[in-house]
This record gives sequence, structure tokens and C-alpha cells, in this order.
Amino acid sequence: MNKTIEDILNRRSIRAYLDKPVPEDDLKTIVKAGIYAPSAKNRQDWHFTVITNKETIDQLSAMAVVGMKRIGLEPKEDAHIFYHAPVVIIISSKIAGFSSVNVGCAIENIALAAKALGYGSCIVGQTRYMYHKANKIDVDKLIKIPEGYEHDVAICLGYPNEEPEAKPRKENIVDYIL
Amino acid sequence: MNKTIEDILNRRSIRAYLDKPVPEDDLKTIVKAGIYAPSAKNRQDWHFTVITNKETIDQLSAMAVVGMKRIGLEPKEDAHIFYHAPVVIIISSKIAGFSSVNVGCAIENIALAAKALGYGSCIVGQTRYMYHKANKIDVDKLIKIPEGYEHDVAICLGYPNEEPEAKPRKENIVDYIL
Repeated sequence: MNKTIEDILNRRSIRAYLDKPVPEDDLKTIVKAGIYAPSAKNRQDWHFTVITNKETIDQLSAMAVVGMKRIGLEPKEDAHIFYHAPVVIIISSKIAGFSSVNVGCAIENIALAAKALGYGSCIVGQTRYMYHKANKIDVDKLIKIPEGYEHDVAICLGYPNEEPEAKPRKENIVDYIL
Repeated sequence: MNKTIEDILNRRSIRAYLDKPVPEDDLKTIVKAGIYAPSAKNRQDWHFTVITNKETIDQLSAMAVVGMKRIGLEPKEDAHIFYHAPVVIIISSKIAGFSSVNVGCAIENIALAAKALGYGSCIVGQTRYMYHKANKIDVDKLIKIPEGYEHDVAICLGYPNEEPEAKPRKENIVDYIL
């Protein structure tokens, strides 16, 4: 089968990782894949913060967990929103028409490039809960979000330590006009 | 180079198409790629309308052009928002947290699967202007959007009739925390 189609169909969300760093060259290729996503009117109004510093990754997770508790959610005691992955990429963008669709394209490119190179990944939205723990200015500074940009979503990645099956796909979600 | 990475980096937005239909098998594979995108909490709250009917495609484009004029935009006299592509896929979703990011993932999978199989594609947001031409209920019925769903964005695809270069990528959009 076509390798690209195969990678698209076999990409899974991975929630267990080996404690093993991702080589710099691969990480650069993965980030480049994100940057080569399409964006509305080619604005490319996005920003990527690539984090491999374990202390920072753990700190962000802990902040998000506190934020969750503050708004009444009940994360597990040992919850780690990035599943202890060795790499976290935070995506932010200028909020404008289609910015979230653009970000979706970029993050899916990252997920697929990771898959293509033998890594697992998981898109993580819980980073937004950090903003319930601390002020926006402080969180944005910590994760290097540029002024005028808003954090959208994150993705963690690394060598996978599980091989989950594909979740069943919903039926009756395609209509045709032939 | 890795075929998947190659397809990601070489995908371009294509705005000229051959007048040649896309075989049904390839189209099914492309739609399947969309459905295999990740979605927040695996909700899969999306819907795909696949249109190969030329009259419908032309009608949707004409509606969007009228809609643009109504709100003061000035499309070209012969504007065709789908560049006369033989296939248009309309994506809609239940509006909820991250729905636009989900849709971005799905549409990028479609764009990449198309590229992988030798087709070109272009993500089109202008379909939203149809709602300035006609009532939401009528537009939704025409393009088979399920009740409770909102149209997000569309993508057109077919055999490419141009080979554009990659647009330069913005610099200084990646920060590292190592």
C-alpha cells in the first residue's frame, strides 16, 4: 500500500512513551512538517514552542492539573497530561478566520511526520487549563507565546510504548452528491 | 527520503485542474483518510459531503460568489471558488471544544491522501459565503449538512494542471525550551 496512506490510517494517539529522547534531526523534520501545512490566505500566523526540557514539561503538566481542579474537574492523582513524553510542541496563533483549522492542519502534519519516522504522538488540549492556574501573561511567557498570539493546542511525542488498535469509526458520516 | 515526509513537504494548494474525474476507489481512500484523523475525546462529531456532480459544484460556487458581493467583496467576474475541480468535499461538525482543530486534522489528512495518490487539492473557506446568499436551512439541505452541525470548511481536488513552487515559510516562528 501507499506508505503515506498507510501512515495516515495507522496513526494512533499514543499515551505511553519510552524514556528515550528524540534525535534532533528527526525533531527538526517533524517541526518542518508542521510549518509546511497550508494556512488560510497563506498567512502562516502560527508559532511553535518545542519543549524537550523535562522539568518544564512536568511543570506545565502540574499547572494544568491544578487548573483542572480549580474548575471542578477531577484529574487522577498521578495525572501527567503529556504521558511523560520526551517532547511537547505547543502551537499558538493569531486569532483570525480559520486559525483553528490552520492549527489543525499543522498539528496533523506533525502527528503524521512523527508516525512516518517511527514515533508516536498525542494531541493534547488540556494545556489550556494552565490558564486557570496562572495569569495569561505568565503562562504565555513561560511557554514563549508571542504577544498577540493565543495558545491553541499541544502535541506530545516520542518513542511509543504501546500499540493501541484503531478506535472504530462512526458510520453514516459521509454523504454523496454524485 | 521518507515518502510520507516528502508528500507533506511537497503538498501545494492547487488552483488549476484537469477536466478528468477521480476514480471512485481513490476517492474512497481519500475520504477514509479524513475519517481516520484524530478528534478531541474521539468524538468524531464531523460529517463529510462528497460532491462530484458538476452542476452542484458550479451552483455552490455561484452562490458563494453572490454571497461575497452581498457583503461588499469583489470577486472576479469568472470566479469559481473550486477552480472547476471535479471533486468537492464539504466538512461540517458539531460546534464544541476543538471542533475546528479536529476539522483541520481531517482536512489535512484528505489533502495529504490526495497528494499521495497523485492528485492536487485546495482547502476552500469561501463556501461560508453561501450563507450570505441563502438561508442556513436551505444551504444546509442542499449540501446535506446534518441537523445540529455547522459547515466548517471545504476542500476541492482533482488531477493538478499546475505545479506551483512552495511559498516561502515565515522565519522566527519556532522557539525551543531545551
